[in-house]
Amino acid sequence: MRPPFDPTLYLVTDTELCRPHPVADVVRAAVAGGVTAVQVRDKHASRRELLALTRAVQAAVADRPDVPVVVNDAVDVALLAGADGVHVGQEDLPAEEVRRLLGPDRLIGLSVESADDLAVALGLPPGTVDVLGLSPVWATPTKPEAGPGLGLEAVRELARVAHAGGLLTVAIGGIDAARAADVAATGVDGICVVSAVCADPDPQEAATRLRAAMTPVGAR
Amino acid sequence: MRPPFDPTLYLVTDTELCRPHPVADVVRAAVAGGVTAVQVRDKHASRRELLALTRAVQAAVADRPDVPVVVNDAVDVALLAGADGVHVGQEDLPAEEVRRLLGPDRLIGLSVESADDLAVALGLPPGTVDVLGLSPVWATPTKPEAGPGLGLEAVRELARVAHAGGLLTVAIGGIDAARAADVAATGVDGICVVSAVCADPDPQEAATRLRAAMTPVGAR
Repeated sequence: MRPPFDPTLYLVTDTELCRPHPVADVVRAAVAGGVTAVQVRDKHASRRELLALTRAVQAAVADRPDVPVVVNDAVDVALLAGADGVHVGQEDLPAEEVRRLLGPDRLIGLSVESADDLAVALGLPPGTVDVLGLSPVWATPTKPEAGPGLGLEAVRELARVAHAGGLLTVAIGGIDAARAADVAATGVDGICVVSAVCADPDPQEAATRLRAAMTPVGAR
Repeated sequence: MRPPFDPTLYLVTDTELCRPHPVADVVRAAVAGGVTAVQVRDKHASRRELLALTRAVQAAVADRPDVPVVVNDAVDVALLAGADGVHVGQEDLPAEEVRRLLGPDRLIGLSVESADDLAVALGLPPGTVDVLGLSPVWATPTKPEAGPGLGLEAVRELARVAHAGGLLTVAIGGIDAARAADVAATGVDGICVVSAVCADPDPQEAATRLRAAMTPVGAR
């Protein structure tokens, strides 16, 4: 059985943007503010450093078993840390291979950057992937190689097709509190944020603001 | 039980240096020339590319079960490919953690760059590591960050201490056919070569030359 996974407000960590705060401190504050899932990402860290970072983040949210901790790319690190899952991009290990290594009880997220990527993802055996990261909504300085943004209309269409195929979706790339409501309105199941939380002097308050923006006005 | 492992002439691949030849072709030729073990290394490849590369190398030497294929750094790739082992450096996942993931039936190599590194390696639980890579003998353009060379006397001393602790040793860094005999004379169990094979227009002949240089004159 997969871990609980509410993708509403999905924090992807960035070690540089968190400075001078330790990533684990930012995660703890952000979860207190309303973050529902965490992905540990550090493309500059060695695997040794990433393992230590993942364990620090897990310890920081150990009292919140409802908040899964997922590792970006590094399946070996996720296995050693006993993480709740892995998120892979189109250049990382193929999702089917990752599923073989992780077994049935972990989450797998997959980045999708186009309708072609989505078609491939929907052709995977059922249960391979849990959530698709529609990426990037807008161009973003935290991942310049991701290219120009999909825009809201493309995100809406990708989410519709993904949902028809039974997969959850999150949108990522350039999302801040001012834009969160517009992204939520596309029908995605959640938003991923990086700098909107990591670079904020008050990550808890930033998460609270983002979470409020995700909630329909009538429900607040 | 660990796979057979004769470290006498240990080829570490370099995709760039092999060009225009595919790495797998170079490996096949080098094994025909006398290479006894292969490590797939490509620090520029994505994990997806490294998995494909590892499988291509395994296929190229499938008729030589006596020649193990080991993956540099990427434990997840080694697991998926069913490789014979993993080689880790001081920045990669700690050897004890790698042993947990790989189980008892795979080889683990560990790079050792100083007497301090060696002392740590010798303090690991017995059976954690199979072979130590004494690195670098000489400064090498294929790994500039490895720093200045240990020199032959330091290699001799590190090998002596490692053997007293029951571990195999290979020397790596700047070794070519002209220097192979001097390195063998330090008492190491084998030599690692990269450019001396990968950059040679005739990898089979290069391996034959290196293998001959490793053999004491009276035994030729």
